[in-house]
Amino acid sequence: MKKINNFEEQCAFQEILKIIGGKWSMSIIFILFSGKKRFSELERTVPHINTRMLVKELKNLVAHKIINREVFATVPPTVEYTLTDKGQNLEPIINDLYNWGVTNLD
Amino acid sequence: MKKINNFEEQCAFQEILKIIGGKWSMSIIFILFSGKKRFSELERTVPHINTRMLVKELKNLVAHKIINREVFATVPPTVEYTLTDKGQNLEPIINDLYNWGVTNLD
Repeated sequence: MKKINNFEEQCAFQEILKIIGGKWSMSIIFILFSGKKRFSELERTVPHINTRMLVKELKNLVAHKIINREVFATVPPTVEYTLTDKGQNLEPIINDLYNWGVTNLD
Repeated sequence: MKKINNFEEQCAFQEILKIIGGKWSMSIIFILFSGKKRFSELERTVPHINTRMLVKELKNLVAHKIINREVFATVPPTVEYTLTDKGQNLEPIINDLYNWGVTNLD
């Protein structure tokens, strides 16, 4: 879909970036491409993130239906995160962004 | 290039996002897809950005050779920004991100 670049699209793009544009949200999505993860796994694998930020970002991504949150009735309960179809559709785009960066940034 | 998703790549991806992942940097790049812009034009067209943030982001993007900064000896001097080839290579990726957002986010 050819994009015409006007102020309205600027604002729409900024709304999109607010949801997935942040350093943390894209990192979380990037990790979930390799399959479901528990909270503790995400905490360990998202470089430099703290617990409060991870909770906030996961809430944002669940609210916008980019990731799923599933609670299992173990003791204590286990919480797993997976990408929704919507989230999975980001894989080629984020892979391209990653490859662009590896190629173009020293 | 198929990507294997490990901690090293996580850190590399975060470095990339630090440079172009921010809400402002992607918005500036998005606007420059439609051609060269002066500082004042960018100030008017990047929704909600303030002067200090625009100066900072432009410095970041010039330093990483994603955009060019050209000064013309008019009185007062005119400064124009354009995308480098590196920056231009982001167009299909950022367009895809925009189209994904328009399709998937309410």
